[in-house]
Amino acid sequence: MTEKESIQSKQLLSTRRRLLSVDDYVQGVMNGNRAIIAQAITIVESNLPKHMEMAQKVLKELIPYTGKSVRIGFTGVPGAGKSTLIESFGMMLCEQNHRVAVLAVDPSSSVSKGSILGDKTRMEHLSRHPHAYVRPSPSSGTLGGVTRKSRETLLICEAAGYDVIIVETVGVGQSEVTVQSMVDFFLVIMLTGAGDELQGMKKGVMEFADAIFINKADGENKQAAMNAKVEYNRLLHFIQPITEGWETKAFTVSALTGEGVAHIWKVIQKYKQVTSMNGFFGKRRKEQMIDWVHSMIEDQLKARFYGNPSMKKNITKMEGLLLNGHTSPTLAVQQLFNIYDENG
Amino acid sequence: MTEKESIQSKQLLSTRRRLLSVDDYVQGVMNGNRAIIAQAITIVESNLPKHMEMAQKVLKELIPYTGKSVRIGFTGVPGAGKSTLIESFGMMLCEQNHRVAVLAVDPSSSVSKGSILGDKTRMEHLSRHPHAYVRPSPSSGTLGGVTRKSRETLLICEAAGYDVIIVETVGVGQSEVTVQSMVDFFLVIMLTGAGDELQGMKKGVMEFADAIFINKADGENKQAAMNAKVEYNRLLHFIQPITEGWETKAFTVSALTGEGVAHIWKVIQKYKQVTSMNGFFGKRRKEQMIDWVHSMIEDQLKARFYGNPSMKKNITKMEGLLLNGHTSPTLAVQQLFNIYDENG
Repeated sequence: MTEKESIQSKQLLSTRRRLLSVDDYVQGVMNGNRAIIAQAITIVESNLPKHMEMAQKVLKELIPYTGKSVRIGFTGVPGAGKSTLIESFGMMLCEQNHRVAVLAVDPSSSVSKGSILGDKTRMEHLSRHPHAYVRPSPSSGTLGGVTRKSRETLLICEAAGYDVIIVETVGVGQSEVTVQSMVDFFLVIMLTGAGDELQGMKKGVMEFADAIFINKADGENKQAAMNAKVEYNRLLHFIQPITEGWETKAFTVSALTGEGVAHIWKVIQKYKQVTSMNGFFGKRRKEQMIDWVHSMIEDQLKARFYGNPSMKKNITKMEGLLLNGHTSPTLAVQQLFNIYDENG
Repeated sequence: MTEKESIQSKQLLSTRRRLLSVDDYVQGVMNGNRAIIAQAITIVESNLPKHMEMAQKVLKELIPYTGKSVRIGFTGVPGAGKSTLIESFGMMLCEQNHRVAVLAVDPSSSVSKGSILGDKTRMEHLSRHPHAYVRPSPSSGTLGGVTRKSRETLLICEAAGYDVIIVETVGVGQSEVTVQSMVDFFLVIMLTGAGDELQGMKKGVMEFADAIFINKADGENKQAAMNAKVEYNRLLHFIQPITEGWETKAFTVSALTGEGVAHIWKVIQKYKQVTSMNGFFGKRRKEQMIDWVHSMIEDQLKARFYGNPSMKKNITKMEGLLLNGHTSPTLAVQQLFNIYDENG
């Protein structure tokens, strides 16, 4: 802990006695105080109305200070070695005086509600580095609004001065779409040795990729990884690249030996240069902003409907009528909207 | 074409000169007239307001005649042989005098908008069988409301007298969740020879499964399929079955030789018996109905917001201000809702 952080923590202790104000959050985040950054993200992820209101006030103040990082999405199936590779990549950047934040979008299983991305102890070295901030996966109880919450978390990290934001997700479900909607560069981590069965899924993920890194290119697996790279580059010829003016390519990397890790950053820098020149970098960010607005609109429409005091009891009542066969789904919806319009 | 269908088609030709009325649709569907069933599904899938309105009126009349089929979800990665297996399974049921409808929930790629499940020419034999109705994949232009539309299509087929409804999907994206929300029994088709890389994804899909069938258990692949069955059954022990009182098991099948196809139906009949006895069959259908109501509410909230005449031009205006940096996303949403409330 630096002297500055120590002073800030003392200030935080004193502020803990009362609730943090909008200004406490804004100043704390902008000073890079990790305890306050963590608390700010917690209120962003919360579904409590008072937290949501506070989060919006804080964000409104912070937004002018956002937008200056490179936002990188990392995806790959469980077991591909994402965490180890991100740790190795992040450590390298920190040594180069970058400030690195790692966030997670965890789709979890909609059945088991378990976390796919693992627990808070991940990335032990990186999470202790003074230039890094590793945010644990959102708690599994977090309901809805994943896109909004993840995006707002990213903005908080930007306002806190992190200039490289890594958004980690797992290659299943809708999570790539969510991450794609908030990053500048999308990196897919692959392994060798997948059967034909995977072709379809691979294609789905490859369509999102700005680069593919075949991990675990070390020891006995090195040759297989090099062969896989050739094969992926062949497949990539058949896929329309997601980013205008940029050719998605496959590379090999080893989180274990560190070979190829520096190349990840080179590819990203090259990407930023090319897409800044041709205008796509800014264009994608603008499109993402519009998408974000629409996802906030949807969230708010739902919050207003379900939060309407007269709806709560009527929804319960209507569910009862439905389960007893006394109304049909279509009719139930119609009646609920009639009540909503009378009490809106 | 039977004589009855021929007469109905003549009637349809005459009705084509004018627009079909609610009653034309209702009678046509209940008489099992395929041309009218197809048209009814087309209006259900449509996003045109006049079609949506007509579809709701037709469904309201048909709902009392729905609910009597067994609804079966089929999923599996591309290349697993889903279509061939469904065709073989469907033909067998038709020969046993069942009436079989096959629908598709195609998540498509959100990037390429291409169809994963293939085109209209699939299941050549089954689609020509007088007891079967094979609905092609929804057109790729279909936007939003996938859950609602798929569910309503299923209800139309039930009202038309199909007693086995097969909902086909592909094991990627959110489509399993969509299909899970509308079927009684969820069957996952697997192949042998998948690498370790797949374990995570397998687990995700296996959590939804009421049964796993390992396809292509024929010729040289037969022994490998039997081994895979043992392995899957071992894995299944570690997963909480999705259905109360039912143990999810793995089996082998060959769409090519037909071996094991009859067993699919035996498993489903056994399942229906067990879950009807313990009440889970009805319980799941009730939960699905509640979920359906909430997805209709969300659709309607969005339709009302975006369909509001004063919103259209203001959304365009706000997007312009956003792109020029003259407002922030959060502020834009707030202002749009202020306008919405004044003009609601």
